[in-house]
Amino acid sequence: MCFTPICGGTGAGKPMLNSADASFVARLEVRLGKGALRACTAADLEEPRGLFRGQGAVVARPGTTAEVSAVLSMCNEALVPVVPLGGGTGLVGGQVMERGPLPVLLSLERMVAIRDVSPENNTMTVEAGAVLADIHAAALNAGRMFPLTLASEGSCRIGGNLATNAGGVNVLRYGSARELCLGLEAVLADGTIVGGLKRLRKDNTGYDIRNLMIGSEGSLGVITAAVLRLFPLPKALHTAFLAVPSPTDALALLHGLQAQFGDAISGFELIHQTGFAFLAETGFGLASPLAAPATWYVLLEISGAVALADMLEEALAGMLEKGLLSDAVIAQNETQRRHFWHIRETIPAANKRIGAISSHDISVPVAEVPALIARASAALPPHLRVNCFGHMGDGNLHYNIFPPKGENRAGYMKQREELARLVFDIVAEFGGSFSAEHGVGRLKVDDLERYGDAGKLAAMRRIKAALDPNGIMNPGAVLRVLGRA
Amino acid sequence: MCFTPICGGTGAGKPMLNSADASFVARLEVRLGKGALRACTAADLEEPRGLFRGQGAVVARPGTTAEVSAVLSMCNEALVPVVPLGGGTGLVGGQVMERGPLPVLLSLERMVAIRDVSPENNTMTVEAGAVLADIHAAALNAGRMFPLTLASEGSCRIGGNLATNAGGVNVLRYGSARELCLGLEAVLADGTIVGGLKRLRKDNTGYDIRNLMIGSEGSLGVITAAVLRLFPLPKALHTAFLAVPSPTDALALLHGLQAQFGDAISGFELIHQTGFAFLAETGFGLASPLAAPATWYVLLEISGAVALADMLEEALAGMLEKGLLSDAVIAQNETQRRHFWHIRETIPAANKRIGAISSHDISVPVAEVPALIARASAALPPHLRVNCFGHMGDGNLHYNIFPPKGENRAGYMKQREELARLVFDIVAEFGGSFSAEHGVGRLKVDDLERYGDAGKLAAMRRIKAALDPNGIMNPGAVLRVLGRA
Repeated sequence: MCFTPICGGTGAGKPMLNSADASFVARLEVRLGKGALRACTAADLEEPRGLFRGQGAVVARPGTTAEVSAVLSMCNEALVPVVPLGGGTGLVGGQVMERGPLPVLLSLERMVAIRDVSPENNTMTVEAGAVLADIHAAALNAGRMFPLTLASEGSCRIGGNLATNAGGVNVLRYGSARELCLGLEAVLADGTIVGGLKRLRKDNTGYDIRNLMIGSEGSLGVITAAVLRLFPLPKALHTAFLAVPSPTDALALLHGLQAQFGDAISGFELIHQTGFAFLAETGFGLASPLAAPATWYVLLEISGAVALADMLEEALAGMLEKGLLSDAVIAQNETQRRHFWHIRETIPAANKRIGAISSHDISVPVAEVPALIARASAALPPHLRVNCFGHMGDGNLHYNIFPPKGENRAGYMKQREELARLVFDIVAEFGGSFSAEHGVGRLKVDDLERYGDAGKLAAMRRIKAALDPNGIMNPGAVLRVLGRA
Repeated sequence: MCFTPICGGTGAGKPMLNSADASFVARLEVRLGKGALRACTAADLEEPRGLFRGQGAVVARPGTTAEVSAVLSMCNEALVPVVPLGGGTGLVGGQVMERGPLPVLLSLERMVAIRDVSPENNTMTVEAGAVLADIHAAALNAGRMFPLTLASEGSCRIGGNLATNAGGVNVLRYGSARELCLGLEAVLADGTIVGGLKRLRKDNTGYDIRNLMIGSEGSLGVITAAVLRLFPLPKALHTAFLAVPSPTDALALLHGLQAQFGDAISGFELIHQTGFAFLAETGFGLASPLAAPATWYVLLEISGAVALADMLEEALAGMLEKGLLSDAVIAQNETQRRHFWHIRETIPAANKRIGAISSHDISVPVAEVPALIARASAALPPHLRVNCFGHMGDGNLHYNIFPPKGENRAGYMKQREELARLVFDIVAEFGGSFSAEHGVGRLKVDDLERYGDAGKLAAMRRIKAALDPNGIMNPGAVLRVLGRA
């Protein structure tokens, strides 16, 4: 079975891709050695939401950048597709190719070394397969922090975090994965190794290939190693759980706190009462730490000097008086602080148990968040349940739609596309994004074509054709494979 | 006169470029209207160091993005080269094409609007011709700051700042131009408009064309507008002028302060006594604010809560006791603070009056700064004078070499290349960069080929060929024009 890969122009004259057949796999094995290949497991072909089911001929497990280069150049020559595998935790199907010729799955699972931790430079050099939690531990061990924080940190790999420009709860202060990476090494489709493992804060020597690879979701090449930015550990963390009358008040609260604390605000997460309802319904047994029920909550974190604790208490008291919040509790110790964050981080698990009809990882300019929530809420069928929560400080909300209480989503799945369209149309009106942090993958290729800028798409296609002319890299991710309906 | 433009492959089959002749200029005028063209002035063809002398047929002054697109598509069709013009303050000749067919100079001087200032989103939307000082004023007017700070802010334009990924004195805390830009609009060589003026902190929808255009120095297209990040005004600035025994002590000082103040440190500038010698010799009349002479100085700035002032005084007292510094003065008011910075910012002007043989904008991992200074100082001919100063907190130094006191550089200019090679070879040993913030332009094309990664260069050439297949955009900047020796 063959199909035409993506290309920049008309597609004329582009080669067809081939399945990785037994003879190709045998040649790969000769090149890499016996232990470097393994059969595909169920876990390799699944993704967390179960929306796509992957396929693959074999998992290649190169142990060095040179071996990654060898795999890619062999695949490129034989026109065999390659799907890079990190921790497999992506939410948009970027890690699973469900149709077309059988690909080689290129896993970074053997390239997990933390090569260098340099607290005096605030840098760490890691191989792409290093698991995020191991990176956190190595940083802490050196008296530093690596701020990228995700629910999946126990299994996701830094190469995947970078390939998808992962976000998480610390973006407000420290930025996304892109902003936490100083240097990158990657291999292009034809095996060309693009070196760049410099531990430099400033380096203006040519085009920004690093940022081009970051966020390209494995469709331009394979990230093999990176230099990460470390940060001093904050002197103290001040964490509060707040009840707010409305998103508008939450926004006023954010502005008031920013005026006073500047970029010391490291977390500002919005939570709706539906989040607590779901936590109760699904048996997680996590209730609000505040006595009286409220409709909206904010999980606030401020990092910095110990002296900020008093300032925070005073600031919140003032805002309570103004009516911007109706209740507040400040964590008195690390256990309580962890409990607050545990609530926030368990909401996605509760959502999964309830079963969303349609989930949306959206962003708008932060001042538009209240208006967006109001518009979307008015537009949706009132019998459906919405769990809206997330990184309000970044203008990034997870806006997830569920069936009425007690009903299964199965009967509603035919409304899925229509609901997504409705939400994304509203997001577009506000100048927002249909994928703030999850990426495009295979799930949102249509959305990119519908909502993306035509000139940007044209530029992307030209870059894809220039760096991967045969279209072997993660076919169907980010950009449509021509010839596929 | 014609020559072969840069291209990705062998160059075979690429068209030759043509001068913008009278008939082409006449057609441009018909398309844009009479007021939109003007003759080239001396200022358009000069650059600050006088190393290159530009040429041009005419200056096109489009008033809109659509007109920029029209100019580029006409030039692309007629194979006429285009040199984008911002404020003309670049230091590596990126703004002046000195040979080959006569280009159209595309100036953004009529696209200077500040379209939107949104303190509630911490964003500003500007046209690419807006002067940096006007952007600062507009931000202040809205109670915000835009942190990009350069000596040339009165004349440089934001489009040029972004095209070169400008740095400056606030990178330590706020990052380079790239990190201060949320959205970008640009026009590719064939006139394709790449839209992206989103005011979003997070947007993971496809390849990072924004960062590809940023730092490409006009060789991939023309930046026409941008969304910039604004920041709350710091509650207070705490500025100190310190004498330090050595660069090693300066590094220990930096680490000690970072442990205590974290990223509240917004400036850490190293200054050598040669800087003060030059300020005296060239009539600027600026002396050290410290009583006793020293070999090395640090200009330190910490931004944040008013309460930090006491902490800083205490921290510096402790470091004085440890011998990490030999003297210190903390600015007691804004006048004194400005005076400290004025000293730092006048050093480049003094350098210009003395006349450098060779100037180097280099970076290394910050912990390597002392070793780099020692190595370079030992390797250079001892009769030459070195003024080493700059953004030590970022690992970025301006390492400039001058003739002996009283001598003119003219007799030394034949040593220029050899001296640069010597410095850059040492920088390369330390894993550093031969251009930390100034870019490649035309001055450092050879250096990029010598010191750059071969795979990265190959990727750059493919991207250039993909986005500017005729090679009309700023020929000879960043990448060599094939066929030119």
